[in-house]
Amino acid sequence: MVFLPSTTSATSTVDTGLKRSHVDFSRHLSSEARARLPNPIKSIWKAAQVKAGTINMGNGDPHHTLYPISEMNFVVPSIDEHDPVQSWRSGTGEQNIIASYKDDPCALSLRTAFAYGAGAGLQHVRDALADLNDRIHSPPNHTVSLSLGNADALTKCFRLLGDRGNSFLCEEFTFSAMTNAALPLGIEWVPVRMDKGGLVPSDLERILSNWNEVTQGKRPHVLYTIPCSQNPTGSTLSLERRQQIYQIAHDWDIIILEDDPYFFLQYDLGVDQSTIRQYGYTRAMAEVLPRSFLSMDYDGRVMRLDSFSKIVAPGMRLGWVTSNNFLAEKLDMLTDSSSQHPHGMGQAFVAELLGSDGWGVDGFMKWISSLCNEYQRRRDLFMDVFRQKVAVSGFATAEVPQSGMFVWIKINLEHHARFSTSQTPTVPGGPTTNTADLMDELFRKLLDCGLVMMPASTFAIVDRTGRTTGNHIGDRLNFFRATFVGTDETIRDGLTIFGRALEEFFCF
Amino acid sequence: MVFLPSTTSATSTVDTGLKRSHVDFSRHLSSEARARLPNPIKSIWKAAQVKAGTINMGNGDPHHTLYPISEMNFVVPSIDEHDPVQSWRSGTGEQNIIASYKDDPCALSLRTAFAYGAGAGLQHVRDALADLNDRIHSPPNHTVSLSLGNADALTKCFRLLGDRGNSFLCEEFTFSAMTNAALPLGIEWVPVRMDKGGLVPSDLERILSNWNEVTQGKRPHVLYTIPCSQNPTGSTLSLERRQQIYQIAHDWDIIILEDDPYFFLQYDLGVDQSTIRQYGYTRAMAEVLPRSFLSMDYDGRVMRLDSFSKIVAPGMRLGWVTSNNFLAEKLDMLTDSSSQHPHGMGQAFVAELLGSDGWGVDGFMKWISSLCNEYQRRRDLFMDVFRQKVAVSGFATAEVPQSGMFVWIKINLEHHARFSTSQTPTVPGGPTTNTADLMDELFRKLLDCGLVMMPASTFAIVDRTGRTTGNHIGDRLNFFRATFVGTDETIRDGLTIFGRALEEFFCF
Repeated sequence: MVFLPSTTSATSTVDTGLKRSHVDFSRHLSSEARARLPNPIKSIWKAAQVKAGTINMGNGDPHHTLYPISEMNFVVPSIDEHDPVQSWRSGTGEQNIIASYKDDPCALSLRTAFAYGAGAGLQHVRDALADLNDRIHSPPNHTVSLSLGNADALTKCFRLLGDRGNSFLCEEFTFSAMTNAALPLGIEWVPVRMDKGGLVPSDLERILSNWNEVTQGKRPHVLYTIPCSQNPTGSTLSLERRQQIYQIAHDWDIIILEDDPYFFLQYDLGVDQSTIRQYGYTRAMAEVLPRSFLSMDYDGRVMRLDSFSKIVAPGMRLGWVTSNNFLAEKLDMLTDSSSQHPHGMGQAFVAELLGSDGWGVDGFMKWISSLCNEYQRRRDLFMDVFRQKVAVSGFATAEVPQSGMFVWIKINLEHHARFSTSQTPTVPGGPTTNTADLMDELFRKLLDCGLVMMPASTFAIVDRTGRTTGNHIGDRLNFFRATFVGTDETIRDGLTIFGRALEEFFCF
Repeated sequence: MVFLPSTTSATSTVDTGLKRSHVDFSRHLSSEARARLPNPIKSIWKAAQVKAGTINMGNGDPHHTLYPISEMNFVVPSIDEHDPVQSWRSGTGEQNIIASYKDDPCALSLRTAFAYGAGAGLQHVRDALADLNDRIHSPPNHTVSLSLGNADALTKCFRLLGDRGNSFLCEEFTFSAMTNAALPLGIEWVPVRMDKGGLVPSDLERILSNWNEVTQGKRPHVLYTIPCSQNPTGSTLSLERRQQIYQIAHDWDIIILEDDPYFFLQYDLGVDQSTIRQYGYTRAMAEVLPRSFLSMDYDGRVMRLDSFSKIVAPGMRLGWVTSNNFLAEKLDMLTDSSSQHPHGMGQAFVAELLGSDGWGVDGFMKWISSLCNEYQRRRDLFMDVFRQKVAVSGFATAEVPQSGMFVWIKINLEHHARFSTSQTPTVPGGPTTNTADLMDELFRKLLDCGLVMMPASTFAIVDRTGRTTGNHIGDRLNFFRATFVGTDETIRDGLTIFGRALEEFFCF
């Protein structure tokens, strides 16, 4: 990865031999982002730092001798174990200490980590994650900014790119906590049809080419997508679809928000053992992990969001955004004007974990590989129990997810005695069946039986007034999102309850 | 403090015997805040959690057995030392370990701290800080939400309360990094005059009573103020002024954003030693610390912002907001739709530090008391050196700050040979002197001499187009903000350079 100097031109002219494109990124900015001024105090400092040895009587920064923390330690699994996740879970493995110091040498001194910093995060940590990115995605001309996880990053991207009245594209079932966060900003969501393979490129093209700016307002310039283990449907986009979607984004000048928290949790990867032995886990994993939108982003139109939430722990609240230098600078200015830089505790932990005294990048990828094996085991258990306890009845079916945490369970409501197709839509594109009512009844039955699965209605795109949008999505709400990341007991007991409840629901 | 149930009425009717008020808080919300919907997934969970033992197959939460961290330790000073800050700085004191565990008992399990949580933070930590609040401010009917420090909290308050075209009030010199953050939201700043005692209540009253909604738009409904060690002027509001300002806020129905990161750093407090012995540090400190706006907030119109940045370390990125239940719920919904809850590392640290195995609240207040002594020593050193090296010439003068980190140094430009009062303002209320030019020249001279102080122009309120607002503030830019929190060497060397540079500037 090349770190371009921060001149951050708003346009990108790329000649890759394959195609030539010239993108004006400033057209994608919200009026809020365009109006944002640089921090005047930091501007003063930029001027001041031209001279070495300058005495700072400018800033109200507590001196590091007054930080009441001299050392921070984390007890973590040893990465030398053959299968570190299994050893860790069983308590049989060795442990390591990840240590940071204020006054002793380490990868990232607590003097730095506990001081004020820039919104983008400390260079040391950004470099470590850029290195990881580079080995996995080899993105052309991008820069890494830290985030507080993907919710933080994504909602900042909404503010960066969205003006009141704008329409953004997304999968028709999606992570509604995030799409809802855009609604108060005045962003409207335009759902794109999905099938078992995820977002359907031809429907994306259809929406964009049929868009009428006179009646519908500005044509969407942002696509929000979860390419791996799409939340809630669990689908993973094929390479072919990714290429098609990127091409459409190129043709219509769309920014792709690639929200990819489940990227590292892939199953049936067939990692090559000899590659591991010869080149290590990072290269071996990189060979078989899906190709991200970022990896094919010659235009600079992808903002990729990665997170430690699923591969370390959600409460860490740390992730990273990879984007072109212009958008990265605008994002960093928003961070400086809102949450500020991520906490030093997490930054120091990441610096040491990925550093030479910690796991290193390759050790981290070994942990991830081991984690994939464990989650794959749970997925397989889930699907086995599902076949035995649920699918046998024919009342529900599910695809086997290739990645992530979710199974999208289809309820075959057409077999239900009270299923009705006679309704007349009250709004154009509204439901013609009683799917929503039956699913609500089933959801409440599951609750009564002591089981929570998330109903599809929770994830269906709603407009600002809370009504389900058209496109007859109301007839396609016959799904539950279930997770297989709980314990074996949860999987067995939960699916047993589910199977019984379904039989009662359909047969009585 | 009473935690009211979260019914969160938008109105507050308070009968305190002194006065009766009925405040409609919903009128203060921005259109964004009013439009925000609850997270649909969390709503599902609220329904689901009525029944104990329900199996969760709903959420994609990694199981705690897969968090690769079993223990987190911080090495901190022992609070049993007589003067813990001095012992810590000299390296002679005992140390303590602040430990959190995933699988062993502790104040806040890492199983909880590293899981997903609510935007307001974990109840355990909120309760600990509410207890601290209670002992210091005894606020009536408020609730505590965690923040990522005051920049995060304040910019969220701007989004919560400010609509495009609104005018907010602030001190005429203020922390411009924050006021600038409000400009892209379309909020205009209305500067209130200051004197040595800080914000002048009569000017606040003048602005509000002269406000013409026809020509000036909606009357300001928010006051942003830094009551202790006002940034940049270092002034601390007297109790009398606070009471006057609160009364004006009451009369005009103004929300007060009390940004108080320096609150705990007060000097010449005269803490009563016998109170310490009899009741501990918390009570002894509470007796002499300034009375906050929160402490007098019977209306519920104060949103108070506290931070660990100045009393622990800035890189912690953790603080807390205290406000009425209605505004707290709206703030928490914004957090759920943006940064998410604060990192578990900091929450676990605070829980243990303030818990029975850590310093406890009283130990924390002992640390703060010791910290005040150290900063008071630095302030006194600064003022001594300032008198010797700077004030003797008569070219600069400064008030002794009662709190915080800043000295507001007045440059007596009227003694400069090239000082001119002949200019005609190009805009109404614009400068009539060449103050800005001379100060710019002096700032550059200091830089050449190897010293940075922050020029007043950096903090003067500017409007959206970047011009200094009227009120002749351009003639009152003859100040530098200097800090006394550096090392003794920085203070001595910096002020020696400053004195010499001033003499050259004035005499040549």
